[in-house]
Amino acid sequence: MIVEIPERVRELLERPVLVNLGTTRPDGAPQVNPMWFVWDGEFIWFTHTNYRQKYKNIAHEPRVSISIIDPENVYGYVEIRGIVDHIDPDPEAKLYQRLSERYDGTAVTPADAEQRVAIAVRPTKIHQQ
Amino acid sequence: MIVEIPERVRELLERPVLVNLGTTRPDGAPQVNPMWFVWDGEFIWFTHTNYRQKYKNIAHEPRVSISIIDPENVYGYVEIRGIVDHIDPDPEAKLYQRLSERYDGTAVTPADAEQRVAIAVRPTKIHQQ
Repeated sequence: MIVEIPERVRELLERPVLVNLGTTRPDGAPQVNPMWFVWDGEFIWFTHTNYRQKYKNIAHEPRVSISIIDPENVYGYVEIRGIVDHIDPDPEAKLYQRLSERYDGTAVTPADAEQRVAIAVRPTKIHQQ
Repeated sequence: MIVEIPERVRELLERPVLVNLGTTRPDGAPQVNPMWFVWDGEFIWFTHTNYRQKYKNIAHEPRVSISIIDPENVYGYVEIRGIVDHIDPDPEAKLYQRLSERYDGTAVTPADAEQRVAIAVRPTKIHQQ
């Protein structure tokens, strides 16, 4: 399934804004955490590790929800629902480096590089307000 | 169950910051939306309506997750997991009025006042970073 991304949402996705990623825990409770991301035109990418809770959540339930608040208009927000399409090992933390540069201006290699993964989310539904 | 609220989290809860509320949809997928809130020392209160999706979600799964980004420190965030303790009808939209005044400075009565409800969330777990 390919979903059309409206122009306003594309513009938001180009910007280094913190988003909130919602996942479902294996026991069915929701979990929400702020995340860095980058959009490549097809997938929304997140860096994470292969041992923390969010990884367990998406391994169990690949559907996710991403909330983006427009920094220029707090009444404008976008909820992107999507599904984890695939997860790539990233033992050199290249995605983390890319994201730390995008958000902070400096490419950093994290201490847990060997356990890093790159999570690719495919948008399936866009809700704008 | 009573959970201890750390001082830093109390301070954040006193401020009119937008939070992201995570719920679980009846089909198990997560949903995340920005929300106004107010904290009364026991419950985190949200205004909502009795016909929209989030209401259906919490009627089905009362556990929620609240993500708060510290406006003064984007690396500081708090995730509060909690449970909907009760939902009060609010047909005069008193909570909406209170929240619109807290966030915007003007108490507004919404067009859907008759369907408004006040959702009381009891914190059960605090995760700080």
